[in-house]
Amino acid sequence: MIKSALLTDFYEFTMANSYYNEKLENKMVYFDYFFRNIPDNGGYAIFAGLESFLNYLKNLKFTKSDINYLRSKKIFTEGFLNYLKNFKFSGKIYSFDEGSYIFPNEPIVTVYGNIIECQIIETFLLLSLNHQSLIATKASRIVNAAKNRQVMEFGARRAHSYSSAIYGARAAYIVGAIGSSNSLLDKMYKIPALGTMAHSYVEMFDSEYESFLRYAKSYPNDVNLLVDTYDTLKSGIPNCIKLYNEYLKPNNLELKSVRIDSGDLAYLTKKARILLDQNGLKNTKIIVSNSLDEYIINDLVTNQDAKIDIFGVGERLITAKSDSVFNGVYKLVGVVDSNNEIIPKIKISNSIVKVTTPGFKQVYRLLNKQGGAICDLITLRDEEVDTKSYIIFDPLEPWKRQEIKDFKKIEMLNLVYDQKVIKKKTLNQIRKTYKEQSKHIWNEVKRLENPHQYYVDMSQKLYDLKQELMKKHLK
Amino acid sequence: MIKSALLTDFYEFTMANSYYNEKLENKMVYFDYFFRNIPDNGGYAIFAGLESFLNYLKNLKFTKSDINYLRSKKIFTEGFLNYLKNFKFSGKIYSFDEGSYIFPNEPIVTVYGNIIECQIIETFLLLSLNHQSLIATKASRIVNAAKNRQVMEFGARRAHSYSSAIYGARAAYIVGAIGSSNSLLDKMYKIPALGTMAHSYVEMFDSEYESFLRYAKSYPNDVNLLVDTYDTLKSGIPNCIKLYNEYLKPNNLELKSVRIDSGDLAYLTKKARILLDQNGLKNTKIIVSNSLDEYIINDLVTNQDAKIDIFGVGERLITAKSDSVFNGVYKLVGVVDSNNEIIPKIKISNSIVKVTTPGFKQVYRLLNKQGGAICDLITLRDEEVDTKSYIIFDPLEPWKRQEIKDFKKIEMLNLVYDQKVIKKKTLNQIRKTYKEQSKHIWNEVKRLENPHQYYVDMSQKLYDLKQELMKKHLK
Repeated sequence: MIKSALLTDFYEFTMANSYYNEKLENKMVYFDYFFRNIPDNGGYAIFAGLESFLNYLKNLKFTKSDINYLRSKKIFTEGFLNYLKNFKFSGKIYSFDEGSYIFPNEPIVTVYGNIIECQIIETFLLLSLNHQSLIATKASRIVNAAKNRQVMEFGARRAHSYSSAIYGARAAYIVGAIGSSNSLLDKMYKIPALGTMAHSYVEMFDSEYESFLRYAKSYPNDVNLLVDTYDTLKSGIPNCIKLYNEYLKPNNLELKSVRIDSGDLAYLTKKARILLDQNGLKNTKIIVSNSLDEYIINDLVTNQDAKIDIFGVGERLITAKSDSVFNGVYKLVGVVDSNNEIIPKIKISNSIVKVTTPGFKQVYRLLNKQGGAICDLITLRDEEVDTKSYIIFDPLEPWKRQEIKDFKKIEMLNLVYDQKVIKKKTLNQIRKTYKEQSKHIWNEVKRLENPHQYYVDMSQKLYDLKQELMKKHLK
Repeated sequence: MIKSALLTDFYEFTMANSYYNEKLENKMVYFDYFFRNIPDNGGYAIFAGLESFLNYLKNLKFTKSDINYLRSKKIFTEGFLNYLKNFKFSGKIYSFDEGSYIFPNEPIVTVYGNIIECQIIETFLLLSLNHQSLIATKASRIVNAAKNRQVMEFGARRAHSYSSAIYGARAAYIVGAIGSSNSLLDKMYKIPALGTMAHSYVEMFDSEYESFLRYAKSYPNDVNLLVDTYDTLKSGIPNCIKLYNEYLKPNNLELKSVRIDSGDLAYLTKKARILLDQNGLKNTKIIVSNSLDEYIINDLVTNQDAKIDIFGVGERLITAKSDSVFNGVYKLVGVVDSNNEIIPKIKISNSIVKVTTPGFKQVYRLLNKQGGAICDLITLRDEEVDTKSYIIFDPLEPWKRQEIKDFKKIEMLNLVYDQKVIKKKTLNQIRKTYKEQSKHIWNEVKRLENPHQYYVDMSQKLYDLKQELMKKHLK
């Protein structure tokens, strides 16, 4: 949706201008996108944002007014500005599928291109993937906590501006939310638009009952009522029952749902359920909302025996309140030399887990015969992985080795852009990817608290290369 | 920037359709935007987002394709869809100025219009004002913590999508950030674009020194270097000194700044400062970045004696990480009856602080002779406030009363939209509003921990009206 190529950190342009002036504009390089920590100390993250990023790539160009802006800074050469006039991203993108389970320190996207284009796209790549993966991960935790109950995304009004509302709702839908309050998502993506009414609607009529009756007459086949404007148990639910007896039942209509948006949700839903059941409204669903997140939902479902069918989750989902930063980074991992060979690059750090993994790579997800994920395995791109027998080991504890036999391997990092988007996925296909992969990942990894740490292993060849580069650098 | 009128919660349309069918389309009402809790248990919040909201209002219309989408839902009447075809927001907006200090439970924006238009604009009003006030508040805390040091906004890559990057950076600039890494903000708003280089730039050359030299030759008048790619004290700073001696000094050039993006910032900046000073680089500024926020900055400045001139603050500012939700709400406060009188509306809650304040109101900021803010005073719109002598009291503790004499009053809630935007403010004027108001608000209110609670009082007349309505409702 954003059209401006200037939504880019200014330093990308100063670096690019310098590269251009150094005649490096045809220097081909590889960058990896990866992340280091899972939000909320969770066991997994979910990848999203690829479609937005690829749309950006496809449309990326500098307008005359962009060039004029850059010229006004008086630090860019005319040669470089002229280069930008004809700029088009000409590189390739290798990526995990949207909706994939992803884990720390594995390359999730690899960008191949000349150093200028690779640098210019950095900011937008990071903000698309970081934001949408953050919300997909948070929403996945929320949907899991709700167990077999449904989750609706209600966050637009507290989202961090409109594009966050749009792409956050899309991310929530990928991981199993049944719809969104936001109408635009329905128009753009056919994500079902959902909602009941606001307190103001109830207040606009002379009485709560009158407002319910008016609403039911407007939407006889979809009667969903907000019951906490005055008092849920003393007024809202009794008025629902009255409406059922006096209007709905005589006309063969149903009360589809009631929504409770305040108060003690465990207590109120239990009491409301009894009142509804006793009065012929066994099929009426109970929706709750009000600052929910995976922790509160888990408690309501697991400990409180609350009678809830649907959770409306807003501000804490759409802003990922408990941990609002997804710290994906974008690092140079290789430079192509004049012999067309990839010179692997490494970024050294005091901490071993922060040292980047060099070279152009592939990631395999290894599955056992039952389809359970054994680990993700990072290799150099051209390596063979023998599925009959293979030795895996954790690169942080290389002395612990294990032979695995007769397994399946899935290639995770595939070409998705080369001049154009390759095999664009529909949103339903992305939902399916998530669902399929969910079967492979153990429940222990999905736990809310103290999840099992999923293994991300490295091939011996890649491990040796990394060690060698580290030694060279530390000398 | 968003063009779609469908970026609206679906229930706004179902309610609006029902109002239309009930022939309430000319029913005039008042809604208030206000918030209940200050993020991070702070003492104040800063209002932002008005410009985005007014731009939205100005351009709000339903396209043929929007109408077709709504028609496809098969629940809206043709009369209503036809109404939307010619829809234009025809109401009035009263608002605090952007950049104002705002406090819980006072009306910050009042919307007057027919019930349909007031309902349709709810979602966008909330998301614009909530998001931008959240970030302005967070950034204000960060700028305050930095004391007389400068703050640059660096958050684009971790923002919650692109519009959050744009409007978050704008909000940070309002409260005193000196610029943003994001080039688009410079083009759109003349917010200075700032930056140094990425680690990848340093890695693209054969040595760190070579990369510094190349950069200096590209930007001789603006040499800003990233010094932590290999080792800040053993490599980065020594290479800066070498560059100064071998290239900058002989050419009469300066090293403007160095940036440190990792490691122990207190230790490294103190050591770096000594090395720079000893080698003729006393004017070189030290910039730091890496997951900073007001707490870390306060500690670096106050306890660690770190030698820092400029803070580059990214992810924790742009996502308001410590508290990512601004819980502003939009509530019906009055309905105009057939005699053109305002019938005040109230939303009751179990908690007294959550009961809304009814009626069409004004907010005054009362200042003592020295210009210090005494309190904000909420009155009914047509009340007189005698600045010679007035009795103030806290509506939650109405028995504590105090007479104040010879004070000044500032009207905070002013007409800003009536068919068109009235007296649009430039970004510099908004910065000035913030700066001016900062002089009125006591430092005790701005404290990071345990701030003084600013008083938001109520006129006797408004208090009595609220009490009366509460009594009526609770019967």
